[in-house]
Amino acid sequence: MVDYRGVRERVNVTIEDGTITRVGGEVEGDEIDCSDLVVMPGLVNSHTHASMLALRGYFDDGELEDWLKRMWEAEDKFTDELMYVSAELAVIEMLSSGTTAFVDMYFNPNQIKDLSEKYGIRASAGYTVLRGLDPEEAVKKTRSLGKSDLFTPVVNVHSIYAVGLDALTRVRDLLTGGERIHIHVSETRAEIFSVKKRYGLFPVELLWREGLIPHIQAVHLGWVTSWEIELLKSSPGVTHCPTSNMKLATGGSFPFKEMWEAGVNITLGTDGPASNNSLDMFREMRTAVLLQRHSYWNTWVKAQHVLRASTMNGYRLFKVNGGLIEPGHVADLVLLNRYDLVPALNNRTISHLVYHLTGNSVERVIVRGRMVYRRGMFEERKRKLVEKLEEILAGRLREV
Amino acid sequence: MVDYRGVRERVNVTIEDGTITRVGGEVEGDEIDCSDLVVMPGLVNSHTHASMLALRGYFDDGELEDWLKRMWEAEDKFTDELMYVSAELAVIEMLSSGTTAFVDMYFNPNQIKDLSEKYGIRASAGYTVLRGLDPEEAVKKTRSLGKSDLFTPVVNVHSIYAVGLDALTRVRDLLTGGERIHIHVSETRAEIFSVKKRYGLFPVELLWREGLIPHIQAVHLGWVTSWEIELLKSSPGVTHCPTSNMKLATGGSFPFKEMWEAGVNITLGTDGPASNNSLDMFREMRTAVLLQRHSYWNTWVKAQHVLRASTMNGYRLFKVNGGLIEPGHVADLVLLNRYDLVPALNNRTISHLVYHLTGNSVERVIVRGRMVYRRGMFEERKRKLVEKLEEILAGRLREV
Repeated sequence: MVDYRGVRERVNVTIEDGTITRVGGEVEGDEIDCSDLVVMPGLVNSHTHASMLALRGYFDDGELEDWLKRMWEAEDKFTDELMYVSAELAVIEMLSSGTTAFVDMYFNPNQIKDLSEKYGIRASAGYTVLRGLDPEEAVKKTRSLGKSDLFTPVVNVHSIYAVGLDALTRVRDLLTGGERIHIHVSETRAEIFSVKKRYGLFPVELLWREGLIPHIQAVHLGWVTSWEIELLKSSPGVTHCPTSNMKLATGGSFPFKEMWEAGVNITLGTDGPASNNSLDMFREMRTAVLLQRHSYWNTWVKAQHVLRASTMNGYRLFKVNGGLIEPGHVADLVLLNRYDLVPALNNRTISHLVYHLTGNSVERVIVRGRMVYRRGMFEERKRKLVEKLEEILAGRLREV
Repeated sequence: MVDYRGVRERVNVTIEDGTITRVGGEVEGDEIDCSDLVVMPGLVNSHTHASMLALRGYFDDGELEDWLKRMWEAEDKFTDELMYVSAELAVIEMLSSGTTAFVDMYFNPNQIKDLSEKYGIRASAGYTVLRGLDPEEAVKKTRSLGKSDLFTPVVNVHSIYAVGLDALTRVRDLLTGGERIHIHVSETRAEIFSVKKRYGLFPVELLWREGLIPHIQAVHLGWVTSWEIELLKSSPGVTHCPTSNMKLATGGSFPFKEMWEAGVNITLGTDGPASNNSLDMFREMRTAVLLQRHSYWNTWVKAQHVLRASTMNGYRLFKVNGGLIEPGHVADLVLLNRYDLVPALNNRTISHLVYHLTGNSVERVIVRGRMVYRRGMFEERKRKLVEKLEEILAGRLREV
């Protein structure tokens, strides 16, 4: 079994200055009565495009190439206001379903930073190298966002096929410190074919040759060779987005078992709300196990693997000591309704978290020791935002 | 596109004597204000084992053969009380997530009948031919359950591989009227191999030769040949259980497109809570599209297909005119929180129902024109049952 001690039962947890200082024993100071709650570490959504919430349900029935074309056409009509309202709704959806940190790729990282501070959720975002934004400008603007307690800039590059190798190496040459590049890699067969034809190498091989792997968070990896898996070991983390891959019918399968055995830092992401169409990491964990079991025709991948990918491994990507309820780890915690874990016996807790619950069982969320969500807290704000979003869409995107 | 008019927006629905009599126009008599709600037909869970809720999360990591062995060992210790409490919790879970009818295979159809009348949910169940219960007794006892407005007996046979062909043909010879046989068919490669080796035919071919197809609701069908699909046309309905197949790593894939094109009545089921581990039909619809798109490497299967499979087609299996919001159809309706369908524009409703929502968006449920669920209604009862179940399990199943 995977050694995962993320879930603790019937034990007191002491938090000081945003960090867990003691597990067990008596608690001094303010106490939260958790007798009807189950505590787990916060979930990390390692890949999304929050503002695409505006396009949820807009075009569900195309494969990736068609789908991207339709998304880009619609996005050309997006305003700052539309992006902000959408991102705010996405943040509410994530936080209230137990996500305490997320990585975002879009055109509004300044808004993501603002929302991360306003709502108290960890986020990593940056300007995206794609149509119209060149590497120099993207890196400069991303750097100027600055780091805060909750926010970390990341350099977003859409993909090798969308921006070309030249743009990618220019980004690399501009990186001075520990910045990470967040990029879609090996998502479809068409991408593998075009990259191999153009550069003579598979996508991960190409990134390796250019010395990029230690800087790269590669997302998707549905079509990789066994030798590319080895090359990914030095990456800060790779991200599996099972729902999006299935919904867009990209075929292939993220090689979870081989990656895990090679020691690659596997994380999990929902992808954006237009290709998922949910931001609930509980549902994503479940879908990940189901897809993997279906692909391998065996039950090697288990609840514990995906729970660890969504907690400890995600925090490792953020370079934060988190994902376990242990002294020294950040106090990013999710409190769940104990009566939703049925029956809660015989060490079934981890099974329930992955296979049975949805984000709706979340009662409270704590980030850096601060209570940032409590059931019902955002109801009124959400209604206002929903109405606002629909009003904007009815005007601007009536025809899409 | 699939012709599906199951969802109606901004229109009044008139109900008389459990049936929809008018759609549109003014309503006379009692009114429910639905301005913050979206109305859809009730969902039919066409295959489950409700009382296996006691075993949810108990053994998640085995393939079907191992898994069944463990389940049967544990079930040997079940009491009537344990089955009743589990089934009641399952009924609450189904009803409160929008399921208005379900088909159950287990050992307690008398309890299912009782619960169906107590909670006002449609159900179909019967005694199961399996270890210790012979066909004559199973059919006799099932028949004696009797039909009511909400309950219909069905003859349950576990599978060809578990009971043998002889038992199955004896059941057939005992059927006098329109009784249906509900049975697991072609779930694993091992099953196909053993049936073919023993009888010289694939499972569906064998059922066809014995004249059983017009009586058979075959569940799973993950491994069928193209000519078997043709044979299934005269069946009252077949049932796809995507989550269970994936979780148990049975491989294969229910041939949704070919079945649909052949005109087979495809329905959807969660399977039992020990192999799913949820009874939420919203999640099942989503998983069905995702699995099918992954299997075909294309987006042929759409939200509308699985919504129809879970509504109209399910009602057809029950021989009830339902699943559409049209005059003459039964008033089995689910009312959803409009603020959960975000953004609710441009005919995105069906997309949201399948890809975005979970059963938690259900505010109210109506069956035969009667309001049988309203958010929060079963909270207290559920808590009591959860505690009761855990108490029983701690005593009886401590060692499992």
